[in-house]
Amino acid sequence: MDMPSSPTPKSKVLVLGSGNFGSCLADHLGNSDHEVYIWSRHTSFVEHFNLHHRNPSYLKDHVFSSNIRAVGPSIPDKAMIHQMDVVLFAIPTQGVRETLAKLRSSLVGDNLPLMIFVNKGIETNTHALTLEIIADTCGGDIARAATFISGPSFAREIVRRQPTSVSVASLTESQAQRASEIFHQPWFRCYTGGDPIGLELAGALKNVYAIAAGMADGLGFENNTRASLITRGLAEMTRIGTAYGASPLTFLGLAGVGDLFLTCSSPTSRNYTVGYRLGKGEALEDIIKTLGSVAEGVTTAKGLKKIIDEMKVSACIANGIYEVLYEGKDVKTGVQELMCRPPSRELDLPDEGGEHAKRLLGKLGMD
Amino acid sequence: MDMPSSPTPKSKVLVLGSGNFGSCLADHLGNSDHEVYIWSRHTSFVEHFNLHHRNPSYLKDHVFSSNIRAVGPSIPDKAMIHQMDVVLFAIPTQGVRETLAKLRSSLVGDNLPLMIFVNKGIETNTHALTLEIIADTCGGDIARAATFISGPSFAREIVRRQPTSVSVASLTESQAQRASEIFHQPWFRCYTGGDPIGLELAGALKNVYAIAAGMADGLGFENNTRASLITRGLAEMTRIGTAYGASPLTFLGLAGVGDLFLTCSSPTSRNYTVGYRLGKGEALEDIIKTLGSVAEGVTTAKGLKKIIDEMKVSACIANGIYEVLYEGKDVKTGVQELMCRPPSRELDLPDEGGEHAKRLLGKLGMD
Repeated sequence: MDMPSSPTPKSKVLVLGSGNFGSCLADHLGNSDHEVYIWSRHTSFVEHFNLHHRNPSYLKDHVFSSNIRAVGPSIPDKAMIHQMDVVLFAIPTQGVRETLAKLRSSLVGDNLPLMIFVNKGIETNTHALTLEIIADTCGGDIARAATFISGPSFAREIVRRQPTSVSVASLTESQAQRASEIFHQPWFRCYTGGDPIGLELAGALKNVYAIAAGMADGLGFENNTRASLITRGLAEMTRIGTAYGASPLTFLGLAGVGDLFLTCSSPTSRNYTVGYRLGKGEALEDIIKTLGSVAEGVTTAKGLKKIIDEMKVSACIANGIYEVLYEGKDVKTGVQELMCRPPSRELDLPDEGGEHAKRLLGKLGMD
Repeated sequence: MDMPSSPTPKSKVLVLGSGNFGSCLADHLGNSDHEVYIWSRHTSFVEHFNLHHRNPSYLKDHVFSSNIRAVGPSIPDKAMIHQMDVVLFAIPTQGVRETLAKLRSSLVGDNLPLMIFVNKGIETNTHALTLEIIADTCGGDIARAATFISGPSFAREIVRRQPTSVSVASLTESQAQRASEIFHQPWFRCYTGGDPIGLELAGALKNVYAIAAGMADGLGFENNTRASLITRGLAEMTRIGTAYGASPLTFLGLAGVGDLFLTCSSPTSRNYTVGYRLGKGEALEDIIKTLGSVAEGVTTAKGLKKIIDEMKVSACIANGIYEVLYEGKDVKTGVQELMCRPPSRELDLPDEGGEHAKRLLGKLGMD
């Protein structure tokens, strides 16, 4: 669609990570006339990209914006970081702690760049959200200003300017506002909010519920069941999030409903595919062997199980998925057990709770 | 799926209306061993059904439960009404006032049946919700006890026992609980709540947003856009509902997200189809001529426009749909205008409002 881009002043943006999502966002920012650097730890990527303006591994058909320059393989130094207006972390959750530890010594002094995170997931060993990883490695000040972007956004559609909308959240809403101004275009709409904990939980948990939706489809259930499972999954995500200390309304937004809807509707989603093939009767180990890439929901289901047990929150779908994935429960039996539960109130949110968020906000120096 | 039915005591249920949804619910109740009567004003239906246990117009392949008897064509009399435990209204919204007016003289005395309503929509002339129509015709006592069922539920899947979940709401939650006990089965799960105003608004408004989703698809937009539009539509529905006086969380439930998701995902939805064909460039009058049945979203968009103007609530998608449907705005221009709006906060719910609900609850004798 041919529309004028908004007249944001040009920013310098460093994108850390040259995967699917990092490179599509670099492209979007480059096309919005920002000065963009994309870092990769692979020399081959840096050389290939700067020569051809193509990513050798992702979005291979796409010629990237000429406003992007690849840098690496060593991590950008303090001088470079301090020249940037934005550092965008587009690396997998399991690598965030290590990367931040390496960057930590550069993240001191005034005029720090705006730090934006687009990874989704829970750290495997600690069950920490990214907000907590940031606080652990860089301290509360930096974590309070960190900004998170999430929402229904396939990279292959973003590079083709298919209209896309995302949630942009930070505990410091003025930072979310800044991020929104840099990213916003008619074809890439940013909606700001102040609940990064809810946004992060929604982005991580939805992968578990996409496995459930895939399972139901694999078992041959139809539209009513699919809509019901997605909605009940959303109610469960919201209950877990509320018990954790997030706002229930965050789950009504793009990072919640929006992304859940996209993931559960797409046969190209890895998490949905794992569920679908489980529903068809394949064994998990066979699926993982042939999937060719990681399905984050499979590991998130394990971390989530710990979190829901700790919080003692009712989460029958997540528990069912855990039993199918890790305790050898038959998929059909799991679904039957879900269906035989007694009737209940629709949205049974916990009256109190939020201990997890309180502890986390404590780390950030907030009450 | 083969599962035991729950041991609810048998109830006598009168289903008013022999359309698609009324007959599938009659079938469900008959199969749950209730004693079911289905009323039609057409002698031909009554005779055909009692002879063949088939509906000559809907779900034609299905042989209905032998626990159902058709009655009519005259409206059931007071003696019959008073024998019933439940009267289920499965008639279009535009016919509810007239039907209740006819039944009013039978709805007096003690031990009135539980009244359940499954229609979705706003009354065209008055913009009244069904709750208000009940109060107008039968008084506040009956309206306060009235119960509403809504959610993602294609009739053709219900008769095949595809697992389905619905919201069941009443201002008197014990009545919603009663309805749930009568309807609930492993393959037909009932979730209760206390916000019938939100449930009704969600059921009516979602048809307007399904037109929007269809338009985007018709224009050739892809997954990100579709997920974005559905989620932003949901945020708008929630904002309108909250301004009206409903709970925002109702829109997170089966009657909200669930039904919106089903309607927007199904090429068989009439409302989605209207939008899709508008997106493809057809004129509304041509679409309506060939559609063969009513698309409720088209009339709801008109009533909704009045309501949002009255409440002064921001609702750019509903306004855009109204302009395309009734003011000849070009579909592409409408979409471009939506996309060129400035960035905003994600879920901007009104701080105050609820005048509509207050006025309605006043009619019901509630503060």
